[in-house]
Amino acid sequence: MSTKGSSETIEDGSDVLIVLDTRKRWLSKVTSGKQFHCHKGFFDFDQIIGQPYGSKVRTNKSIDLTIYKPIPSDFLQHIPHSSQIIYTKDAGLILLNGGIHPGSLVIEAGTGSGALTSILAKYVGSEGHVYTYDNREEAYNTSKKNLERLGLESQVTIKLKDVSEGFDEEKVDAVVLDLGDPCEIIPHAYAALKLGGVLTVFMPTYNQVERVYIKLQEYSFGDIEALELILRGIQLKRNAIRPNTRMIGHTGFLIFARKLLGENE
Amino acid sequence: MSTKGSSETIEDGSDVLIVLDTRKRWLSKVTSGKQFHCHKGFFDFDQIIGQPYGSKVRTNKSIDLTIYKPIPSDFLQHIPHSSQIIYTKDAGLILLNGGIHPGSLVIEAGTGSGALTSILAKYVGSEGHVYTYDNREEAYNTSKKNLERLGLESQVTIKLKDVSEGFDEEKVDAVVLDLGDPCEIIPHAYAALKLGGVLTVFMPTYNQVERVYIKLQEYSFGDIEALELILRGIQLKRNAIRPNTRMIGHTGFLIFARKLLGENE
Amino acid sequence: MSTKGSSETIEDGSDVLIVLDTRKRWLSKVTSGKQFHCHKGFFDFDQIIGQPYGSKVRTNKSIDLTIYKPIPSDFLQHIPHSSQIIYTKDAGLILLNGGIHPGSLVIEAGTGSGALTSILAKYVGSEGHVYTYDNREEAYNTSKKNLERLGLESQVTIKLKDVSEGFDEEKVDAVVLDLGDPCEIIPHAYAALKLGGVLTVFMPTYNQVERVYIKLQEYSFGDIEALELILRGIQLKRNAIRPNTRMIGHTGFLIFARKLLGENE
Amino acid sequence: MSTKGSSETIEDGSDVLIVLDTRKRWLSKVTSGKQFHCHKGFFDFDQIIGQPYGSKVRTNKSIDLTIYKPIPSDFLQHIPHSSQIIYTKDAGLILLNGGIHPGSLVIEAGTGSGALTSILAKYVGSEGHVYTYDNREEAYNTSKKNLERLGLESQVTIKLKDVSEGFDEEKVDAVVLDLGDPCEIIPHAYAALKLGGVLTVFMPTYNQVERVYIKLQEYSFGDIEALELILRGIQLKRNAIRPNTRMIGHTGFLIFARKLLGENE
Repeated sequence: MSTKGSSETIEDGSDVLIVLDTRKRWLSKVTSGKQFHCHKGFFDFDQIIGQPYGSKVRTNKSIDLTIYKPIPSDFLQHIPHSSQIIYTKDAGLILLNGGIHPGSLVIEAGTGSGALTSILAKYVGSEGHVYTYDNREEAYNTSKKNLERLGLESQVTIKLKDVSEGFDEEKVDAVVLDLGDPCEIIPHAYAALKLGGVLTVFMPTYNQVERVYIKLQEYSFGDIEALELILRGIQLKRNAIRPNTRMIGHTGFLIFARKLLGENE
Repeated sequence: MSTKGSSETIEDGSDVLIVLDTRKRWLSKVTSGKQFHCHKGFFDFDQIIGQPYGSKVRTNKSIDLTIYKPIPSDFLQHIPHSSQIIYTKDAGLILLNGGIHPGSLVIEAGTGSGALTSILAKYVGSEGHVYTYDNREEAYNTSKKNLERLGLESQVTIKLKDVSEGFDEEKVDAVVLDLGDPCEIIPHAYAALKLGGVLTVFMPTYNQVERVYIKLQEYSFGDIEALELILRGIQLKRNAIRPNTRMIGHTGFLIFARKLLGENE
Repeated sequence: MSTKGSSETIEDGSDVLIVLDTRKRWLSKVTSGKQFHCHKGFFDFDQIIGQPYGSKVRTNKSIDLTIYKPIPSDFLQHIPHSSQIIYTKDAGLILLNGGIHPGSLVIEAGTGSGALTSILAKYVGSEGHVYTYDNREEAYNTSKKNLERLGLESQVTIKLKDVSEGFDEEKVDAVVLDLGDPCEIIPHAYAALKLGGVLTVFMPTYNQVERVYIKLQEYSFGDIEALELILRGIQLKRNAIRPNTRMIGHTGFLIFARKLLGENE
Repeated sequence: MSTKGSSETIEDGSDVLIVLDTRKRWLSKVTSGKQFHCHKGFFDFDQIIGQPYGSKVRTNKSIDLTIYKPIPSDFLQHIPHSSQIIYTKDAGLILLNGGIHPGSLVIEAGTGSGALTSILAKYVGSEGHVYTYDNREEAYNTSKKNLERLGLESQVTIKLKDVSEGFDEEKVDAVVLDLGDPCEIIPHAYAALKLGGVLTVFMPTYNQVERVYIKLQEYSFGDIEALELILRGIQLKRNAIRPNTRMIGHTGFLIFARKLLGENE
């Protein structure tokens, strides 16, 4: 019927998600002649090349692993990173409430490991573009490697630059701030956004929420909204459906605001 | 700098978001020669044509309204609908965990007012496509009107058809079910998905979570995960930052699962 | 078997809880010769005098109401009050984590309508005592009336007094603060508590949480813990069990701390 | 002022709470001539006998521990137990919504380690009584030891008995069920309660919530309410106030219902 869908066969060079169970899962690149190793043994990548996604492979310790084709959220959770990365729950709302979609021009600060960058790049698509800033060389190198691996490098410009000096772009559709002190960057975000463009700020503490809110009011931002998303996992067990006992209680708060015509303009 | 960003000027025929405050906001189409009316008075659309987004306009009752360029989530919340529609928090995670991105082929059932359809269509972009099913004529007509208004009709095929007879498409990347009894549709979803493709089910009750989980196990679905997202709004008031007193306590549960190579294949 | 249990028959002068449904319920005093009126009609109190608790009575509009014997939490929710009162979820934890039980000596500030006071008095019992402070005459009068109605006046001393001048008591087991600016009262709470005694502070905002925490560290309080309780109601409907759509998202934060031997002693 | 408060001096035989930090804390009995040992070293109990509560003591490894006088919730959390015990957040609401206070006659099933039993016994006080049932000998022995240690044995009757045969008491004020299959005990709870008395059921899964609800309707229970309490800990750090990253996502659901005059009577 449809022929536009992407390939269903595992190839040499494919990124794959290798799943043992809900908690143990790895993102890996299939490489002919090499092996995948984990605490449950190893298998040869050649065993899965040519197999369809959704296949199982048995390790030398007789443990079955399932091979999935990664979806964008797998990259968000599993690419190498040094610092805390944004969760999919937050990334999904950043797209929708942040006004980020195919064709959007987006600025992000800071880049970190490029995890959120990769999501932004994936969703602005080939007609959009992401400009991402970080002043740490490690962030530049890690994110460059991660984005190339995901084939997203043409949709992103990585800038090794201190954002406290401002952004190079103008009239972008969206700015996303995920850095230690977002307050001092808010004037630069205002300058870079087009009218009606959306600023998204992610931050872990209430103190930052208050400071960002106060700063947003000094500039002409409107429609300011703050919230947090709480994700509760549900135990799937026949006749014993219930929320999971353990959960992540907090990742961060999100503030969304839109640029108004203002005196600062 | 960038010239790819979308227009910043309100034009005749533009969709605009007209905002009084956090709760009172309307989606409207600018029509030269006509007026916008609300409980705070009216203004002539000609007053705002040619003005930049982010401008304010005063009604005949001297109330200021702000004119925003709508982002996708505004459509999700404000397009005409008869039944309950999916919230942006859930829609964002459906994109990320549901494996839906630019270029994806997606099946949705049911269409309803086309609110979630419009989000899916927006994010699969011009290289993807959404096939949406509903057997109610009203849903067909409302969603058609809504999608045309948003200029998304070329990215969606609306089907006035009972999904209990199965889907017409094969090897799609993702299936999203948001209907009263998702269980009986799961076999059809399995048949329509490509290997590794993701099924997303949205449902309000725990009873449905259990039934869907049991059904998913009968078919070869793997990596099954159930969760709910809780959104807490934060009161933005200087020196009085706190969660809001009132909140929506529950919208629904989400189950995500991926198609494995199975005996049913 | 047991004969210690309280009476099961509705008497003239009894306080009763009259229940229409989960949301519509009233606390009322049975008065021979008088009537109970609500929007669903009226009935004569004499109709229920001598009947057992758990009986139904029919109004002149043919609506059935159920007559319950009030439990302490009914008083917390239904006694007359002007300002926001503490919820049962918070009051229950204040008892347990606040170290308040039969025999305890407790100071409370401020009294308000006496709602929390009545719970504290009920649970310290005849061997304990509550000293409650408020500098507003209205609070004194309302709480006095409420406590007398509940027959708890002998277990409470209501003080019309500004707590910024300090408390009259020493070596109490527990101090509970529920007032606008708890910070300045913390030194007085320290002075009034016995060693190891527990201070409980209830406050709505994050800003207060931080200020109280900083103040507690200046004094010799240990084992400081802050938390909030979120209550989710569950919809009880056969085959449609789910959290309620609407909920109270926030009432307040609680801080518990215990008095250490300190330099301030 | 008051002289009714309990002693402030640590004595031979006292139960004490020994606190290293928020997570590491132990309940111990002071015994002259013996030592307290933990992973941070040991100290002689004689070092603290005669000292006031709130004092610090230094171990042989030069670590300071603080000695607190235990409050009832400390016992709930720290007495020896084999199975999952009720959390203070749930126990507090069971008191208030369960209609349990000084003077109440209460039935509990099952006893388990006696943790909740000890809270119930503490709060019904010397004028009330708790009858607790469990058919496991281990539960009988553990709870007996725990209750004697807390000096609460005169307020509790521990029964080594299978509750599926019914309760021995009648006209009690409250029944609390915390056992694997509460449904079959509901008829016995109805029989044992006085009119207007409150039944509390604690259970971990949604499936149980539905079954209990259905059973309660078969008997004449009214005012049925189901809920869950979620406790979020708050990180106390100057300039970085935020919910804790990790939390207990779920303990159990609570159902409260009151006995009505019914045909079963």
